[in-house]
Amino acid sequence: MSNPSAAILVIGDEILSGRTRDSNLHYLSCELTKIGIDLQEARIVPDTAKEIINAVKWLSSKYNYLFTSGGIGPTHDDITADCISAAFETEINIREDAFKLLESYYLSQNIEFNKSRQRMARIPNGAKLIDNPISVAPGFQLKNVYVMAGVPKIFQSMVRSVIPSLISGKPLLSKSVQIPRGEGEIAGALKKIASDHENVSIGSYPYNDGVKFGTNIVVRGIDKNELKDVAKKLKSTLL
Amino acid sequence: MSNPSAAILVIGDEILSGRTRDSNLHYLSCELTKIGIDLQEARIVPDTAKEIINAVKWLSSKYNYLFTSGGIGPTHDDITADCISAAFETEINIREDAFKLLESYYLSQNIEFNKSRQRMARIPNGAKLIDNPISVAPGFQLKNVYVMAGVPKIFQSMVRSVIPSLISGKPLLSKSVQIPRGEGEIAGALKKIASDHENVSIGSYPYNDGVKFGTNIVVRGIDKNELKDVAKKLKSTLL
Repeated sequence: MSNPSAAILVIGDEILSGRTRDSNLHYLSCELTKIGIDLQEARIVPDTAKEIINAVKWLSSKYNYLFTSGGIGPTHDDITADCISAAFETEINIREDAFKLLESYYLSQNIEFNKSRQRMARIPNGAKLIDNPISVAPGFQLKNVYVMAGVPKIFQSMVRSVIPSLISGKPLLSKSVQIPRGEGEIAGALKKIASDHENVSIGSYPYNDGVKFGTNIVVRGIDKNELKDVAKKLKSTLL
Repeated sequence: MSNPSAAILVIGDEILSGRTRDSNLHYLSCELTKIGIDLQEARIVPDTAKEIINAVKWLSSKYNYLFTSGGIGPTHDDITADCISAAFETEINIREDAFKLLESYYLSQNIEFNKSRQRMARIPNGAKLIDNPISVAPGFQLKNVYVMAGVPKIFQSMVRSVIPSLISGKPLLSKSVQIPRGEGEIAGALKKIASDHENVSIGSYPYNDGVKFGTNIVVRGIDKNELKDVAKKLKSTLL
């Protein structure tokens, strides 16, 4: 059986304009790789309802899991929750447990729990809350979509709290072999080895150490022994 | 008239598995913002022909420009040129000018110009070459698609050589205002200002300086005077 598949949808004008460099995609990719869920696509869209809704519909129907990042705060550009409810045609309302969480947090901080902050308790019907140990305002899971905050520290803590509930696969292992020869020199032999081992993927990444070109070859797969065999074959053939 | 639109397609298993952290997206977003081309979507797909072809078809028909990154080297996992030719149903052949460029480069380096390296001279019919001042193997432009290398240094030099040929728009300017108050506190007033100024986009980004929460507000638009006005209004209303 193949590993579960996943996509990430990063939401925010600030990533596409270059103001902010996204780090959530890279964090999530590392965490999913560890537990054997294959991240197969990433998209970044602006804070535009139509784009978010279309991407959510498509990605959630194509992959086992969809993770989103961004757009769940209290301001006018935070429209992710509404877009999720539109994508799944479910209602969205202030939810009592989320409301109480937020209310008692702001009370304890001596901060007014105003209308804008109450917006963060609007959760599509049927969703499950995702804990936010940093600033309380929850993310949520609706069907196979996990809606999380864009602030990296909060995103990461939400991912950590969600991971144990996911159906994981066989961790994707990797083995790297450094070959001090240019890609073009070893490409023929590499192609042959790759076609002899269709259960592993073999990636080839050129480097230049300042003196000459070389190639990092990364073998990825779920069978430790096959990775070892392929790495051995790469070394004996190419070194 | 609105600014030209663009998308970027980053191609490579290594980004989705977390092995490599992409930097081309962020570089391109900054360069396009400077010249008034709006990057409206980014996608990352694996080295899989079907996914690359579908993404190229969709993104090139939806946006004025599509920029791709990755998959144009000499090895078996470099399939971008073939995917572009499949997407546009054009033939792909060894092209004489690209062949000669590569041949004389490898000759001068005393490196064998073998079959694998010759593959890098395979260019879809009708394309225009994009200079590679670093390792010679060219990128290419076919219709509104700019196909560039994944290695950041090479990607960046290709972007720089392509930029002067693009139809640019009005540079997207931005002005940041830091407000030492939480997002939830200012969200109501912010919404009002945003709806009064529909020509600018107003993004709101929470920060925590270790002591308390605050908000960075970023106003983006093409009219310098309007940005100034909005920034002034934000300060007088929210500070």
